Amino acid sequence: MKEKEFLQEVKEINLLQQALGILDWDTQTGMPEKASAYRSEVDSYLYSIYFSKKIGPKIKEAIRYFSEHPEELSEVGTAVFAKVKEEYDLEHRVPEDLMRKYTAAVSSAHGQWQKARETQQFSDFQHALNQNIELTKQLIPYWRKDEKTNYDVLLNQYEPGMTVEILDKVFDQLKEGILSIRRTLQEKGTEPETDFLNRRMTKKQQKRFVVKVIEQLGYDFSRGRLDDTVHPFMTGINPNDARITTRWNETDFKMAVFGVIHEAGHGMYEQDIDDKYAYTPVYEGTSMGIHESQSLFNEIIIGSSRSFWKKQYPFFQECAEGTFDDIPFDKFYRSLNHTKSSLVRIEADSLTYPLHIIIRYEIEKMIFNEGVDVAELPEIWNQKYEEYLGIRPTNDVEGILQDVHWSGASFGYFPSYALGYMYAAQLLHSLQQEIDVENVLASDDYSPIKNWMSEHIHQYGASRKPNQLIMDATHEPLNPQYLIDYMKDLYFNVYQVK
Amino acid sequence: MKEKEFLQEVKEINLLQQALGILDWDTQTGMPEKASAYRSEVDSYLYSIYFSKKIGPKIKEAIRYFSEHPEELSEVGTAVFAKVKEEYDLEHRVPEDLMRKYTAAVSSAHGQWQKARETQQFSDFQHALNQNIELTKQLIPYWRKDEKTNYDVLLNQYEPGMTVEILDKVFDQLKEGILSIRRTLQEKGTEPETDFLNRRMTKKQQKRFVVKVIEQLGYDFSRGRLDDTVHPFMTGINPNDARITTRWNETDFKMAVFGVIHEAGHGMYEQDIDDKYAYTPVYEGTSMGIHESQSLFNEIIIGSSRSFWKKQYPFFQECAEGTFDDIPFDKFYRSLNHTKSSLVRIEADSLTYPLHIIIRYEIEKMIFNEGVDVAELPEIWNQKYEEYLGIRPTNDVEGILQDVHWSGASFGYFPSYALGYMYAAQLLHSLQQEIDVENVLASDDYSPIKNWMSEHIHQYGASRKPNQLIMDATHEPLNPQYLIDYMKDLYFNVYQVK
Repeated sequence: MKEKEFLQEVKEINLLQQALGILDWDTQTGMPEKASAYRSEVDSYLYSIYFSKKIGPKIKEAIRYFSEHPEELSEVGTAVFAKVKEEYDLEHRVPEDLMRKYTAAVSSAHGQWQKARETQQFSDFQHALNQNIELTKQLIPYWRKDEKTNYDVLLNQYEPGMTVEILDKVFDQLKEGILSIRRTLQEKGTEPETDFLNRRMTKKQQKRFVVKVIEQLGYDFSRGRLDDTVHPFMTGINPNDARITTRWNETDFKMAVFGVIHEAGHGMYEQDIDDKYAYTPVYEGTSMGIHESQSLFNEIIIGSSRSFWKKQYPFFQECAEGTFDDIPFDKFYRSLNHTKSSLVRIEADSLTYPLHIIIRYEIEKMIFNEGVDVAELPEIWNQKYEEYLGIRPTNDVEGILQDVHWSGASFGYFPSYALGYMYAAQLLHSLQQEIDVENVLASDDYSPIKNWMSEHIHQYGASRKPNQLIMDATHEPLNPQYLIDYMKDLYFNVYQVK
Repeated sequence: MKEKEFLQEVKEINLLQQALGILDWDTQTGMPEKASAYRSEVDSYLYSIYFSKKIGPKIKEAIRYFSEHPEELSEVGTAVFAKVKEEYDLEHRVPEDLMRKYTAAVSSAHGQWQKARETQQFSDFQHALNQNIELTKQLIPYWRKDEKTNYDVLLNQYEPGMTVEILDKVFDQLKEGILSIRRTLQEKGTEPETDFLNRRMTKKQQKRFVVKVIEQLGYDFSRGRLDDTVHPFMTGINPNDARITTRWNETDFKMAVFGVIHEAGHGMYEQDIDDKYAYTPVYEGTSMGIHESQSLFNEIIIGSSRSFWKKQYPFFQECAEGTFDDIPFDKFYRSLNHTKSSLVRIEADSLTYPLHIIIRYEIEKMIFNEGVDVAELPEIWNQKYEEYLGIRPTNDVEGILQDVHWSGASFGYFPSYALGYMYAAQLLHSLQQEIDVENVLASDDYSPIKNWMSEHIHQYGASRKPNQLIMDATHEPLNPQYLIDYMKDLYFNVYQVK
């Protein structure tokens, strides 16, 4: 087999994936509501062609041949081969029958979860969740490479190289750091005023502002677009098509403004991967954690910067057409970084957010490594909220039923959010060694920041693993102290802690 | 082979077609501008899978088997088999090499046409047009069934059963009828005032009006949607997904208002075909002419009705927020039906429109049946405009270069527009025998009209040929007199001819 033939097969698989990507984008943004049954049939048929090529005879033959003749692969071919082999190993081993059961369970669990949210009863979801867990446990032996524990296997699906051993340490340190900052703010901090944050700003006004901001940050609209959805997302179709979505709330501009800046971070990553990986599975973010590092760098690191807002606030006021003219800059800026315990993860501020993740991490670990009884989970959930955040859900919808992830059997996914945040702070630290970040954010030209990210992260796509990228860019492995220090600086400043 | 197996193959082909349909819709509506090269690769790969199934071994075997055992097919199976066989016969005979040449020529001709429009020189398009013509002539023997002349073969691709013999007669009668009406209007008519038609109406105001109107007409937004494009179109993806598009002009509300009503007519047809044909090639309009009959029935027959506008005008005025408050109904209504010779087909009014089509028909016939020299076409074109419409293009862009069709080698397509218009008037005549149409249009409930169309046209999809549908619905073959009488009534009324 020649490399060319291998890459042609990979390209065809990628072309099918692009088509599936557009169909999925359409399903989520614009498809007429009654078309969904027809759409599922299109999706599953195309997916079956895609999947059978992915584990088909040509790929199998390529894996056999190039495992023996790796020297015949070019640099790009080598990266592609590694990725293709990895996916093949993961996918072809699972017995079809088990995979079918799993897919059916996940699909029905989503409905059960929605139903339980209506009745506000975890018990209506318990059986389906248990099914998802049991089938995932049956899959783990097929997915396992050399991970130590069951939950390590799941973590690795989203963050290659991440382990329970590392995360236990990192999350403990992070949790202590955050709790300590929270104690200080409570004792010595001055709470910012926030009563003006809910002033009405039309979608049009918000859009004018945030579209300009993300263009300045480096999101390229000639290779992307912005649509409205219930659940915001970014989808990278190909190097010249990375689309983002948002939802708008006219009495809470923060939702769309920070939401769009976040998704643009994902989009910039996808728009910025080296073209030489086009039409291959290497043309994508290397992990969920690294992807989140890019979106959170945009949303939190840049979006909480005083210099950034100092520069943008006059334009923001202009877009708001008078609504914020009576709010001086400092008052406005402080309001953006108000922190308060809350029950719902996606509404949490950037200081308390990691605590929500750590709670989910600890519970998932109990499920897969300690065999906890599923019936006990709501009580465990509520106790942890009380312990870490000082508040207790009054029902399961604002408690254990809040996230969609477990209904989709996406166990091991949650840590990515906190990993992304820690990576972002660590990357900022390294970036600051080379560039005066606050100075750049005070200017009209943010390109030095994007160029640095491009050089150290974006360009590689999935050709390098997360730990390697972080090591190369920051010269040390994941270190939560950078995030703790970053949060301390930010919040002590905003809360005027002397 | 079992029918079930045959229909499963047909369904898979249809699922690929649905995916291609969404990709095409996306390309035309929302795709980021720089993504087109990637998109072409996706399109052509998916198309190759689609096409190779369409002429593949399973379909071939089904044709062999069911040609010998037609009695084993159900009613739906029989209709599907007829359509599949028809398409197979058309497609599998053409030598691959010729088809490749043809596709390449068409694709390059489009660029040449665009270039010629920039230079305003037909000579820059002449070579490409000649290529399209020569290759089409080479294809005709492969496409021919039992049609008499070359041009009959082309006509049949868009309007099965239509012939030069019929069209010569019909178009002569129509041309005479229109010219006679135009003479009368000139001699005895009072021209309506139109100076207020260009008053500014925002896209939002226009959209509010027209969306309500097409919902009343029967377009179902839960199974469709309306988007913005440069070139308006309707695309039927599946029974629950028939999307329409439009362009907006804030100083010419007629463009979008009538444009959307037109596309909604196409959409209603596609939304209304009997579900039993879903996932087969029978679930589509039976011909271009019948499709246009539905869009033009909406746009012209309903859209020119006095009762319709009498009922809608107060809401129109409300949507325009005061802009038309000083225009009394009668003055407004008459302005909509102003007629005047013009050079550009897509801007023509409904009286002169068929003359534009007849000119193209006569020229296409000269090309394919009489071997006219392509170099002479601009002069022939201009002479015909002078003869039929009394005006002469001053350059080729407002003359022979105005339409995209010939650059795409869509020869034989133009007559569909006029056929649709004649069908629409003939259908109106029959509808009037059963329903008081003006009374219905004066009411809040237009459903009797849609129900009649559904019963006589829509439900059948492509299971009946155009001539059969028209014969069954109106009890006579195509008769241009209905359109002539209709136009006489309408324009004599508007022009107050005593």
